[in-house]
Amino acid sequence: MHYAVYLAGEIHTDWRDSLIAASDGLPVSFTAPVTDHAASDDCGVAILGAEPDKFWHDNKGAKLNAVRTRKAIEEADIVVVRFGEKYKQWNAAFDAGYAAALGKSLIVMHGADHQHALKEVDAAALAVVETPEHVAQILRYVTEGTLPR
Amino acid sequence: MHYAVYLAGEIHTDWRDSLIAASDGLPVSFTAPVTDHAASDDCGVAILGAEPDKFWHDNKGAKLNAVRTRKAIEEADIVVVRFGEKYKQWNAAFDAGYAAALGKSLIVMHGADHQHALKEVDAAALAVVETPEHVAQILRYVTEGTLPR
Amino acid sequence: MHYAVYLAGEIHTDWRDSLIAASDGLPVSFTAPVTDHAASDDCGVAILGAEPDKFWHDNKGAKLNAVRTRKAIEEADIVVVRFGEKYKQWNAAFDAGYAAALGKSLIVMHGADHQHALKEVDAAALAVVETPEHVAQILRYVTEGTLPR
Amino acid sequence: MHYAVYLAGEIHTDWRDSLIAASDGLPVSFTAPVTDHAASDDCGVAILGAEPDKFWHDNKGAKLNAVRTRKAIEEADIVVVRFGEKYKQWNAAFDAGYAAALGKSLIVMHGADHQHALKEVDAAALAVVETPEHVAQILRYVTEGTLPR
Amino acid sequence: MHYAVYLAGEIHTDWRDSLIAASDGLPVSFTAPVTDHAASDDCGVAILGAEPDKFWHDNKGAKLNAVRTRKAIEEADIVVVRFGEKYKQWNAAFDAGYAAALGKSLIVMHGADHQHALKEVDAAALAVVETPEHVAQILRYVTEGTLPR
Amino acid sequence: MHYAVYLAGEIHTDWRDSLIAASDGLPVSFTAPVTDHAASDDCGVAILGAEPDKFWHDNKGAKLNAVRTRKAIEEADIVVVRFGEKYKQWNAAFDAGYAAALGKSLIVMHGADHQHALKEVDAAALAVVETPEHVAQILRYVTEGTLPR
Amino acid sequence: MHYAVYLAGEIHTDWRDSLIAASDGLPVSFTAPVTDHAASDDCGVAILGAEPDKFWHDNKGAKLNAVRTRKAIEEADIVVVRFGEKYKQWNAAFDAGYAAALGKSLIVMHGADHQHALKEVDAAALAVVETPEHVAQILRYVTEGTLPR
Amino acid sequence: MHYAVYLAGEIHTDWRDSLIAASDGLPVSFTAPVTDHAASDDCGVAILGAEPDKFWHDNKGAKLNAVRTRKAIEEADIVVVRFGEKYKQWNAAFDAGYAAALGKSLIVMHGADHQHALKEVDAAALAVVETPEHVAQILRYVTEGTLPR
Repeated sequence: MHYAVYLAGEIHTDWRDSLIAASDGLPVSFTAPVTDHAASDDCGVAILGAEPDKFWHDNKGAKLNAVRTRKAIEEADIVVVRFGEKYKQWNAAFDAGYAAALGKSLIVMHGADHQHALKEVDAAALAVVETPEHVAQILRYVTEGTLPR
Repeated sequence: MHYAVYLAGEIHTDWRDSLIAASDGLPVSFTAPVTDHAASDDCGVAILGAEPDKFWHDNKGAKLNAVRTRKAIEEADIVVVRFGEKYKQWNAAFDAGYAAALGKSLIVMHGADHQHALKEVDAAALAVVETPEHVAQILRYVTEGTLPR
Repeated sequence: MHYAVYLAGEIHTDWRDSLIAASDGLPVSFTAPVTDHAASDDCGVAILGAEPDKFWHDNKGAKLNAVRTRKAIEEADIVVVRFGEKYKQWNAAFDAGYAAALGKSLIVMHGADHQHALKEVDAAALAVVETPEHVAQILRYVTEGTLPR
Repeated sequence: MHYAVYLAGEIHTDWRDSLIAASDGLPVSFTAPVTDHAASDDCGVAILGAEPDKFWHDNKGAKLNAVRTRKAIEEADIVVVRFGEKYKQWNAAFDAGYAAALGKSLIVMHGADHQHALKEVDAAALAVVETPEHVAQILRYVTEGTLPR
Repeated sequence: MHYAVYLAGEIHTDWRDSLIAASDGLPVSFTAPVTDHAASDDCGVAILGAEPDKFWHDNKGAKLNAVRTRKAIEEADIVVVRFGEKYKQWNAAFDAGYAAALGKSLIVMHGADHQHALKEVDAAALAVVETPEHVAQILRYVTEGTLPR
Repeated sequence: MHYAVYLAGEIHTDWRDSLIAASDGLPVSFTAPVTDHAASDDCGVAILGAEPDKFWHDNKGAKLNAVRTRKAIEEADIVVVRFGEKYKQWNAAFDAGYAAALGKSLIVMHGADHQHALKEVDAAALAVVETPEHVAQILRYVTEGTLPR
Repeated sequence: MHYAVYLAGEIHTDWRDSLIAASDGLPVSFTAPVTDHAASDDCGVAILGAEPDKFWHDNKGAKLNAVRTRKAIEEADIVVVRFGEKYKQWNAAFDAGYAAALGKSLIVMHGADHQHALKEVDAAALAVVETPEHVAQILRYVTEGTLPR
Repeated sequence: MHYAVYLAGEIHTDWRDSLIAASDGLPVSFTAPVTDHAASDDCGVAILGAEPDKFWHDNKGAKLNAVRTRKAIEEADIVVVRFGEKYKQWNAAFDAGYAAALGKSLIVMHGADHQHALKEVDAAALAVVETPEHVAQILRYVTEGTLPR
């Protein structure tokens, strides 16, 4: 069985690269949102025309990004959501809720300091982890049945 | 037509009371999460037994709360999610994502300072508002077809 | 059995009143969009604040109206869509497509001159009629099993 | 990720060719209705036998076309609907409603003069554009994350 | 718990009356197609206008009847389908297939001589019976837990 | 676009072979029930052990056949159901109802003498035809957009 | 909000009575399988006729019971499954799996000695409890927001 | 047509190997849970960290296993569930209920001594068998239409 894995959340560290490298050779494919922060913020007005009001500037962009993220979540078997140290990250929690409602297998990644604030999100997950390596070990176990030594 | 409205998000101000009062007489019923913060945090261990590890303490509680919140969201026609000034409020964004995936009519309430951080959540909404009175006006319009004077 | 009937389309004639009057005594309830044209056009900015750009003026209003129309279509057993003589009426056709995709029983009402242009919409319908009285006769037949004399 | 894109609406200009050419090299496949107007109008009677009544002539044809269009919409990730300058184009709006009810990512293309009449359709869309090149830029952004220079 | 029971199939004997009488006092409500054979056959043209071609005469009528039968099947908890001694009764088998695909609890009623021809229909049923009294006993058992003495 | 087509109904003539031959070269794949009548009747007891009671003999077989037919219908884009001259053919009508409830594109094939008895089945179809060649022409039209000369 | 609660599993102790009594006054309604063991075992043959083969004797009965249990599970907000000390209780685990697949809020009740053997069932639950009083406390909390003192 | 078959239940005998060998050459692919008992029991703590409480030790593991088993069941056309001679096997019954609720074709395998205790599970199945060879014969019949000689 091949698994489609969507990597949601934090875009300011290289956690996706670490995870993908650690999963080398597994029957797994990864998708992600656009991780170029500037492009992600400005895609709406860059393509569809400028908006003087920041709300509509952001609205146009967020809707274009939704074309990609909703398809990726809907086609995923597993949704990994990482909460980093910076920013509000409400879109990460939104994606987690979206995935949970669709019955996706949810894996949440965050540091210990976010534990209490993320308790509702964690409670919807099949695993709560701290590092990309944990996710890779999970992917290895569910695809090959082997545990880390 | 009668509308079921779920009031998600912030539990530390009286916005739900304001909204309910402003909606007096409309064919609308409201549901909400348990808004007693202490009870909400400790319900799991209070009923199911203490846990030495805070993660499981929170996990037990979040799962009990999910019995209520998931039913309320699933039965709602409209989900209103308020983001306040304090806390991480990831559960509010999680509820918004959950509601969006189920195709609920979503109304998001927040102050102007949260506009950019909430752009993905706002983009999934049918209305973005600042106050409970706005929501009451929306409810009045969609049920009775009348606008504020 | 009680039937919920949504009356979509033209808002500039009194066809809904005729239909409701002709259905008197049947186990049927009717819903409709807001039929006050001015309120329907301006509800968004009246409640949520003015927009200098007509596109966003309309966008805000159309989304508020969607709160009402989508619920009404989703809860309907029968969706009646009337195409009148004036305007583009793309929202009527949109509602018909929305209802068809949800598997609703669709009744389309229009004059003979629109026959060819509406062929795809008619082909999705269980009945194509010219007058509100026809719809009332259908409602009488499906609820009581009696035909017009 | 590969995207399936259904191109609905106007069949009297070469907008589909422009869009497909402008999307060259992207991981995207396109489907469309039968765009031979005469064949589309007469397919029912050509295959299933003549009808003296124009209503049934059209009905037979519209149902055959529905075999193709419904499958294409149901399998699409993105539905692009173009409203041109001519004809009633109710089938375009019907397709848009059908796609919206199925939760497809909707992109609507039309000139500025149709803006008000299409406000309900636009409000269901993730993007509203004027030209095929806009759509190609959107497809490039959602698949590759790159913006036009 | 209250059960909605749809009584499909044969309309030329009084089996529905027998079943309803035998179920007196149970928390059960019954629906049925229009059982006036002439009205059922001619409803389409009586309301929507005559058709010279018998195919369209029947087509118009069958579609009106579908408004009623599909709603009734979709809202039923239990669908009882009776195959009598006369006619082809393909509509009965069609209703059984429709109900089976929707996951309804299916009860099939027929005489022993139809056993082999109905084996696929029977195989989709939770009970195969010969008389209305059997159905009444089933309804009594599933609602009250009591067996016939 | 490739179409999956399930060929239900009559198993005593070679209509499937004619249809498949006439569809040569089209992007279409066909599935069918087991058409070896003896194997289809006896598969249950041949594999799972004899039954003294004909009802259970048939029940075991019909359930094994359902493994194949339900998958084939659920994966089909188009379900063609042929009613021949012989037998009750209730399983054909059952398959038609099952396909209709799942929203499949339904094509019904039968001779003129069955027209009235099949009116409910025909009313659920997108095309009613008399011969396999008609179906092949439909498949050619919906896949290639070309009509018979 | 009113909650529908299905009480699955063990039928040889009075746990349902204890739970119902402890939930007095709450906005909750309870359903259950037929708990008369003899009636439950023999309902099939008592109504539909004797079977010499025990497999079919049981099969007929289990299918009649499924009419009741599937409706009850499908209409439940919360499914409580109790595993007692005796019998294999595979039907209890089957009901738990059925409820889990439908996304019901699952509460599992069992003694500590069954903990390891029920780990997959417990992992699908929102609460794992030992006594009916625990369930009543959960119901009180989710409906009224109050905790046991 | 290719069939995906999930092999649930007993992990202490080589029945899966027997079945796979007996199905050689058929258009069928098999999936299974992790059948290394020790890895399956300890995967949670091995990857996610030790738990002093056996309940959470098991909970973490069962949730990781659910990532694999739920995907496998959801993607299966046929779910085979084997009940062996040892252990409680509640997870096997849970998987059967989960598969039944999703409408999968269910095949149950067990010895005669478990017949009465498994009657509810068997009643949801399309076939009840005793050996892997029976399943292979079913797979051969549904894919190739041929019976054992």
